[in-house]
Amino acid sequence: MQTRKGQSIEDASMQMIDKEIGTHQYNEKEWPIVRRIIHSTADFDFARENRVIFHKKAIESGIKALKNGCSIVVDVNGVIGGLNKQNPKDFQNKIVCNISDPKVMEMAKKENKTRSQVSMRVASSDIDGGIVAIGNAPTALLEVIHMVKEGIVKPALIIGIPVGFICAAESKEELSKLEETPFITNIGRKGGSSSASAIINALYKIVRAELSS
Amino acid sequence: MQTRKGQSIEDASMQMIDKEIGTHQYNEKEWPIVRRIIHSTADFDFARENRVIFHKKAIESGIKALKNGCSIVVDVNGVIGGLNKQNPKDFQNKIVCNISDPKVMEMAKKENKTRSQVSMRVASSDIDGGIVAIGNAPTALLEVIHMVKEGIVKPALIIGIPVGFICAAESKEELSKLEETPFITNIGRKGGSSSASAIINALYKIVRAELSS
Repeated sequence: MQTRKGQSIEDASMQMIDKEIGTHQYNEKEWPIVRRIIHSTADFDFARENRVIFHKKAIESGIKALKNGCSIVVDVNGVIGGLNKQNPKDFQNKIVCNISDPKVMEMAKKENKTRSQVSMRVASSDIDGGIVAIGNAPTALLEVIHMVKEGIVKPALIIGIPVGFICAAESKEELSKLEETPFITNIGRKGGSSSASAIINALYKIVRAELSS
Repeated sequence: MQTRKGQSIEDASMQMIDKEIGTHQYNEKEWPIVRRIIHSTADFDFARENRVIFHKKAIESGIKALKNGCSIVVDVNGVIGGLNKQNPKDFQNKIVCNISDPKVMEMAKKENKTRSQVSMRVASSDIDGGIVAIGNAPTALLEVIHMVKEGIVKPALIIGIPVGFICAAESKEELSKLEETPFITNIGRKGGSSSASAIINALYKIVRAELSS
């Protein structure tokens, strides 16, 4: 919950982004999502060189899943930190983050994988039919893509917006090639847990707007 | 704790940043901190237009406080999410984030302030002698600056790197004018909770390097 003061700052920020962005290529459902990423990064590049891209069913599938109380699986605690906590409470969405689980650490060491990579495999039952949001680890995103290709999971939406220099851009390119699985991702190296949270927060805004209309 | 795989990805990323940055204006103590922000954002702009700036005593004062078990007060949970959790545990640094406290919400509503702004005032005993890290809310940073000017608190270090369109750049400019209080901040609108966490994680790296040398 925001205070009136907090809300008025947010509203003024959004107006400023609308004014400064000028023309863009997003439709009326996509733009509030991209705008919220820009709001959380102050980086207009997410509408340009490192621009956000949407699978054609991404928004529809994501909001339907949220409304139906799907799980939300994230790679790092930073994504949880950026969420408006009232939303998952109200819509009974379970938030899953296994990265700090000692068993995940042990498995990762044994298999020479990253913790976030293993944490995805462990969460397969929540990923199936759920929303996965990757803000940090390309290895986690690649693992989810593998799981989809292996037919183990069928996520309602993959939010794949890891940041970084090693494999981040490549993992997102792989994601964008999935035809049947709804995704929201972006081009290039930029991204991060704040961007992943921003996308989830923006989806909830759409859910609430639909329910109140 | 990172796995070997995770560490090798991080090392390769840092090397890539070193290679791509070319010349920069930072000394050998400052650069690992700026580099970690670039690592967490994939945005070289933090060394350029929106560049990070350091009070001359910032690093020394920050690492001394961490070693002595100071509190770390943050504005939003996202900053906590991005921290390497083993560090505050090992150095007994208490992490304080009051933004979700119902009393803070109530006070903020009554006083027409933001929650993060009120959360700073409430944390004054931890801010005094401690480290404050603001990744999100300019109103919180401005409040801390007021508290310093009022003589209520004397933080060991203010990490002020809020992101945004309303007052973010202005609040950081105010911070950079403080002469006696150590700060790390940046110019312009960019920043965020990931950047704030990156700075704290980088400071701990220096602490550990010093202790093991």
